Amino acid sequence: MSPETPAPSSSTESATRLQELLSQWFAPWVQELGLQVQSCGDGEATLRLPFSEHLARIGGMVCGQALMSAADTAMVLAIVSRLGEHRPMTTVQLNTSFLKPLAGQDALVTARIVRAGKSLVFGEIDIVAASDGKSVCRASTTYALL
Amino acid sequence: MSPETPAPSSSTESATRLQELLSQWFAPWVQELGLQVQSCGDGEATLRLPFSEHLARIGGMVCGQALMSAADTAMVLAIVSRLGEHRPMTTVQLNTSFLKPLAGQDALVTARIVRAGKSLVFGEIDIVAASDGKSVCRASTTYALL
Amino acid sequence: MSPETPAPSSSTESATRLQELLSQWFAPWVQELGLQVQSCGDGEATLRLPFSEHLARIGGMVCGQALMSAADTAMVLAIVSRLGEHRPMTTVQLNTSFLKPLAGQDALVTARIVRAGKSLVFGEIDIVAASDGKSVCRASTTYALL
Amino acid sequence: MSPETPAPSSSTESATRLQELLSQWFAPWVQELGLQVQSCGDGEATLRLPFSEHLARIGGMVCGQALMSAADTAMVLAIVSRLGEHRPMTTVQLNTSFLKPLAGQDALVTARIVRAGKSLVFGEIDIVAASDGKSVCRASTTYALL
Repeated sequence: MSPETPAPSSSTESATRLQELLSQWFAPWVQELGLQVQSCGDGEATLRLPFSEHLARIGGMVCGQALMSAADTAMVLAIVSRLGEHRPMTTVQLNTSFLKPLAGQDALVTARIVRAGKSLVFGEIDIVAASDGKSVCRASTTYALL
Repeated sequence: MSPETPAPSSSTESATRLQELLSQWFAPWVQELGLQVQSCGDGEATLRLPFSEHLARIGGMVCGQALMSAADTAMVLAIVSRLGEHRPMTTVQLNTSFLKPLAGQDALVTARIVRAGKSLVFGEIDIVAASDGKSVCRASTTYALL
Repeated sequence: MSPETPAPSSSTESATRLQELLSQWFAPWVQELGLQVQSCGDGEATLRLPFSEHLARIGGMVCGQALMSAADTAMVLAIVSRLGEHRPMTTVQLNTSFLKPLAGQDALVTARIVRAGKSLVFGEIDIVAASDGKSVCRASTTYALL
Repeated sequence: MSPETPAPSSSTESATRLQELLSQWFAPWVQELGLQVQSCGDGEATLRLPFSEHLARIGGMVCGQALMSAADTAMVLAIVSRLGEHRPMTTVQLNTSFLKPLAGQDALVTARIVRAGKSLVFGEIDIVAASDGKSVCRASTTYALL
């Protein structure tokens, strides 16, 4: 990854704070994803997306809509971990590639800032299967700071 | 649009069938979007995304996650309207641009096949505000036929 | 397309001016594409990409790199046609889908503004085969106004 | 990066072979980029894009068209390094984010396979400034194996 992305220095405290923001900032429908902040660092956040039949299609496959939504949500928290809570922002673009199916298990969603400029923030999200750490979904995104 | 995209020749019957598929094929969480098939044609489908506080952030803005999810869902139905119900497929990529906020109102989500090849289908989705028909979100997507 | 995109009202004069900008603003390597401004309007420009062995791989297929480069170039001119010549801008993102091969013939590259905000401009590009008008390549893009 | 991406085990021999393919497979216009294979491994290739006024706009900024074209080219070689020379393929999609300007210096273009399935290959490209290794451009791409 980019030299601009420092290693995560997760603290329990800040992960707790991001978890609070999850329930304050996001739509009730997004909160139903049940995302759990696992760790965070400077410009980086990892969330667990717990498996649920509610998010699955026939065969237990986690729907792509849930993966995209988790990616977008994780990126907001990664940006907060760098810029703080009081910086309004909006998603400009989110590009998602679905590499392989994820069935019957949790996913880990890691979002990282690739570059934070004055008005635009670029990020990348890697979603891996919790069981083997293999990527199932990758996304790249651009946010505008307002 | 492409000369390969004929004008929609919506029939009540097929719209009803697509509405049934919505409740059979998609995850319960996606069904909570409350999408309603408005019209469909050969390789094209238009869905209404009703406004709901459940999908909204503070200020009544419809969350981007709902728009992306509606786009993906509409595209599946657009492909079904061309290729029929029995062709398994998977989303390879979905790229979404958020043009402007949508607050306190329904959206109309139109998905169209741009090109259907032997193994890949390319599509585009336009999401407009129901009140004025202005685009709030555009997406392009690739599906693999299995 | 969006109701924000008026129909092109091409004038010979402005097409001539855009052609001049092509030779002033762009890298010599990009100018080798030989792009010719065909028409332009408010927020829209159509360029011809003449077929050349210089741009082709074995079999006479126009290389994807030339199509992407033509798309980006056309979009700059479409933005100029709306905002004028003196607005500095930079490409933030360009997403290109290659729908089918283009071999041994010219392409027509039409770029349109989908939405122009205060700091960001969203656009879409359709590249069609000159012979039959069928899309061979689609791109969506975001530019930042500086 | 993904656990599916092994560390590069570059050999001079295979880098030489990829350099030969560069001059055989790509359009003359792409060859003018002057790309030099620096290293390669299993599913990975790093190319140098030498600075040239030919590729630059006013101010010595390397044009985005050259960066996108280098990304696409590097990915083809990364795929060859995994799958061999005799597997026909085509670019389905290339999504490029321009993080910051690159002026007056070489770029290093590293392409890596993220996942290679039966019919689709997903890859990511990181373009860094040769002077400080900072990312100036990121791309993600999908190729179809024919």
